[in-house]
Amino acid sequence: MKIATFIHNGERKVGIVNSELNYVECFKLAPAVANLGGLAILELLVEGEELPELGAKIEFSDIKLEAPIPRPRRNIFCAGKNYLEHVKEVAHSGLGSGTTSSTAAPDAPIIFSKVPESVIAAGAPILRHAHLTSQVDYEAELAVIIGIGGREISQDDAMKHVWGYTIINDVSARDLQKRHQQWHLAKSLDSFCPMGPWLVSKDELDVSDTTIKCWVNSELRQNASTSQFIFDIPSLIATISAGITLYPGDIIATGTPSGVGMGFKPPKFLQSGDRVRIEINGIGYLENRVA
Amino acid sequence: MKIATFIHNGERKVGIVNSELNYVECFKLAPAVANLGGLAILELLVEGEELPELGAKIEFSDIKLEAPIPRPRRNIFCAGKNYLEHVKEVAHSGLGSGTTSSTAAPDAPIIFSKVPESVIAAGAPILRHAHLTSQVDYEAELAVIIGIGGREISQDDAMKHVWGYTIINDVSARDLQKRHQQWHLAKSLDSFCPMGPWLVSKDELDVSDTTIKCWVNSELRQNASTSQFIFDIPSLIATISAGITLYPGDIIATGTPSGVGMGFKPPKFLQSGDRVRIEINGIGYLENRVA
Repeated sequence: MKIATFIHNGERKVGIVNSELNYVECFKLAPAVANLGGLAILELLVEGEELPELGAKIEFSDIKLEAPIPRPRRNIFCAGKNYLEHVKEVAHSGLGSGTTSSTAAPDAPIIFSKVPESVIAAGAPILRHAHLTSQVDYEAELAVIIGIGGREISQDDAMKHVWGYTIINDVSARDLQKRHQQWHLAKSLDSFCPMGPWLVSKDELDVSDTTIKCWVNSELRQNASTSQFIFDIPSLIATISAGITLYPGDIIATGTPSGVGMGFKPPKFLQSGDRVRIEINGIGYLENRVA
Repeated sequence: MKIATFIHNGERKVGIVNSELNYVECFKLAPAVANLGGLAILELLVEGEELPELGAKIEFSDIKLEAPIPRPRRNIFCAGKNYLEHVKEVAHSGLGSGTTSSTAAPDAPIIFSKVPESVIAAGAPILRHAHLTSQVDYEAELAVIIGIGGREISQDDAMKHVWGYTIINDVSARDLQKRHQQWHLAKSLDSFCPMGPWLVSKDELDVSDTTIKCWVNSELRQNASTSQFIFDIPSLIATISAGITLYPGDIIATGTPSGVGMGFKPPKFLQSGDRVRIEINGIGYLENRVA
């Protein structure tokens, strides 16, 4: 099941995307509920309730996609340095910390957060923040959507707590990331979290081996499989929930493969007008242009 | 003005604390509004509306304080290493990162976040998480409550965006902080953000020079003035809002002075039964026991 959040006739609505990806069937929801986007449906399902009644079928050409969870209930959890080739490409970037040698896999997941309001839809502009940074970079990532919450979730049980997935572009200002040491600011600038195109329930996707690709304009920059995770999804969930209660609708971005702009010599940072397109097998694609 | 959130007769209520600190005058609020705690009043004031009508006066002995904003709308922004003596005491802890030499003041504010659900009230237990950490530490901090939001707020304008203050104990698991490199996890464990006792409007406090003290049991551990900030409040607000829109009710914890448990030789980490009491001149005190 693919759940999209979108604007139709000036109102936010939530619906199921058909398998040919050419129309959505709208859920009949009160406006205040629809305003939560895909989160409203996810919370109903987690509570064991039935899906709301479906109404009109609307052609894709008549809607404008929004982020599937337009405003997450709290900051997005993000894993850093979770693909070995990416660890290596940023080894000499000054983004290291702690005691691990810089080209080695980290001993434990590195977790930071992005503010909820950094989320933007597929098609919405990534702000350049030119007064603040000259090193805006993309990071293609598979994002996990938590269904049933909990604390001290074991790796064995972790997948029972996953509702589904979406794509996130973990946009990062590399100069700020270095300057401020902790990554929270550099990753949370307004518009720095493109998300979409929709939520996909976990049955549609084999996350043990799915392909993540990222193009900037027509150049393929990232191309990897989630089989290359250093810390897989059960490990990330177990680590975060060891002391932090997870809630339905929590989002965990799983880290980016090699091929980020910072990894090139010379670096290829994003410029105004650049188009970033991320594709994940089984989900779809997320495309945003830099303003 | 001091705004407290509390339980009375089994219901969450919000009220003004009198100057003798022995009763609260309750705002007449619908339960759904009262449920937001002090945030409800702050949002009304920011929108230029009048304070809600006041009702019953209730003796302190008849209420149970809650955190003044029981569930912030997004993660709490926190400054790290913002007092030079604290930078020095943790210089050899393995918590460094980036390019600054470890005993020097950071070149720019270090900002990380704590999840909203880590907030607990004055008097509520700090969980020990003994299966996960053996190095639970306290950090007494002045927290800034944002009133009017905005982006690209100048240092000159910053104080216009401050509504007031409260106290936060930025409880931290030092072993996890080191192990996970980015500090988000180690600072966000359930119950790791005691907050209170209430919100104090900015007119009641000279934050350019107010005293922060912290006792563990009867031992005075931290004793400093906010005049010793490396980055003062206008600087923190300007830095965060340079690229991130701030919203009413956002919380910025301003960092902790020297005297944390990790700074002692040997370290003095918190043990079950320890009582942590933080006092800030002009606000009051926040006391929590370790479970």
